[in-house]
Amino acid sequence: MRVTALAGGVGAARFLWGLKHYLGPEELSVIVNTGDDFEWMGLHVSPDLDTITYTLAGIANPETGWGLKGDTFACLQRLVRLGGDDWFRVGDLDLTTHLYRTCQLRSGAGLASVTRSLALALGARAMILPMTECVVPTRVHTAEGTLEFQDYFVRRKAAPQVTGFTFQDIESASPGPGVLEAVETAAAILICPSNPFVSIEPILAVPGIRTGLRQFPGPKLAVSPIIGGRAVKGPAAKMMRELGHEVSALGVARIYQGLIDIFVLDREDEALRGAVESLGLKVFAADTFMDSPETRKRLARQVLEMIR
Amino acid sequence: MRVTALAGGVGAARFLWGLKHYLGPEELSVIVNTGDDFEWMGLHVSPDLDTITYTLAGIANPETGWGLKGDTFACLQRLVRLGGDDWFRVGDLDLTTHLYRTCQLRSGAGLASVTRSLALALGARAMILPMTECVVPTRVHTAEGTLEFQDYFVRRKAAPQVTGFTFQDIESASPGPGVLEAVETAAAILICPSNPFVSIEPILAVPGIRTGLRQFPGPKLAVSPIIGGRAVKGPAAKMMRELGHEVSALGVARIYQGLIDIFVLDREDEALRGAVESLGLKVFAADTFMDSPETRKRLARQVLEMIR
Repeated sequence: MRVTALAGGVGAARFLWGLKHYLGPEELSVIVNTGDDFEWMGLHVSPDLDTITYTLAGIANPETGWGLKGDTFACLQRLVRLGGDDWFRVGDLDLTTHLYRTCQLRSGAGLASVTRSLALALGARAMILPMTECVVPTRVHTAEGTLEFQDYFVRRKAAPQVTGFTFQDIESASPGPGVLEAVETAAAILICPSNPFVSIEPILAVPGIRTGLRQFPGPKLAVSPIIGGRAVKGPAAKMMRELGHEVSALGVARIYQGLIDIFVLDREDEALRGAVESLGLKVFAADTFMDSPETRKRLARQVLEMIR
Repeated sequence: MRVTALAGGVGAARFLWGLKHYLGPEELSVIVNTGDDFEWMGLHVSPDLDTITYTLAGIANPETGWGLKGDTFACLQRLVRLGGDDWFRVGDLDLTTHLYRTCQLRSGAGLASVTRSLALALGARAMILPMTECVVPTRVHTAEGTLEFQDYFVRRKAAPQVTGFTFQDIESASPGPGVLEAVETAAAILICPSNPFVSIEPILAVPGIRTGLRQFPGPKLAVSPIIGGRAVKGPAAKMMRELGHEVSALGVARIYQGLIDIFVLDREDEALRGAVESLGLKVFAADTFMDSPETRKRLARQVLEMIR
């Protein structure tokens, strides 16, 4: 069964890692947010593509969720000595990815092709697709002014109060190679437990993708990134609050209303079932907290069984 | 006493390391060949600038002469797994230099300024000056066609037979900031024991530098890189043979005839004294083989005493 997922960073990567145990490499396509992409020391860094590639390849740092297992930081430490910043933690192995990607892009290769080469070389057995090959950086509008995404997210640890997001030049972007095909040929579409505002919304904002999803006739499902009113990881709950959403799985379901037909919430949030159903969504309750390989695989298995 | 040296890579670096023990940081200026500079993975690499900076800072790899002491190769190994080459051995710490330089150059800083920042940050206490900030890559003409310098020198291990060298666009290049001043204000000019064809000649070929040297009224001295008919390191002897020069200190002296007034040859080559003197050069015999910190310092001390 071919499944196409929309994905951001760490939460999505963990869910996808579970899925890959029940799907062949040809059965899992992942459309990945590139709104977080930025330049670091002149190199093109794609945080979400890397997190998903590393996690699916089984080489991600299990503690952080991002970066590489056993990576060293000789280069970064020296860079600090040269007057550089170290708030964005690039390891020596991780750096290779950015160096390779930048070099390939400068040679004229597209981001999709570079992503494919990296996935093959590193052993990530899935079709990992950048949402677009265009540059569409996420801008975070905050009480302290407009910030670049990594400045907001990593350097300022998502502390500033957000008032909204824009994705620069998104209106003239086109979906990356294979993206619309992955939507059209899927048996089911899954929205991973990612941040709705800065992981999923940029993907949907690429012209053609939201329409592709709307026209998709099969099951469309989202897994809530909010459990018991809290985000498992990252600032999703904080953003919901600051933007006036109800901070709950119901609040997430409202964001995806009209786009999906099945909503997966945590068993802890069973009490919200009726309210989510009243949005016209089927509700599936599962153990969505993925704190171990077993829980990741179990959630993936349950979601796939439910779709089948 | 202010001394200005013309320098290439490892041999020069070792001689300069000796000199720095007897000269204050304001007393030693080094005009460095940048004809070897090239792009590696999209990064600007300056092999001779780095070798001299690292050696003067006391952080060079003592076994190879180039690269950094205790460096690791995590990034390079991963790059090979991604299909890259590893004939140019860039370590994780060394990489930082190239990354920093490239980033600074792209931000608009000149190569001289970047070189200065690196020297200060790494602790190389001398004025290290790129011969030019223009891009003047050395092309090696060989029986197998024209090769880029690093392709010839590192990848092919200097095996192809050379027929000549050109320095691309050198006629329109200008000396780097501080270069002509370093020549004018010096008490003595030293040509380091470097390859005459691909280390010293590119420096002299930058318009203005050869004239600056010709007009320089003080002592001008060259240390032979050839001892007993052999190059201490690198392909200098092989090149001399292939280009039809006598492979000896005398052959080197002939190349520098008209440009210098003192020639330092090894005690082993005392027999050539008369022949070199007949070129109109003063001859100074010393132990020029620098196989230890002591021999490097001794040669430097002897040369400085002789000039004084």
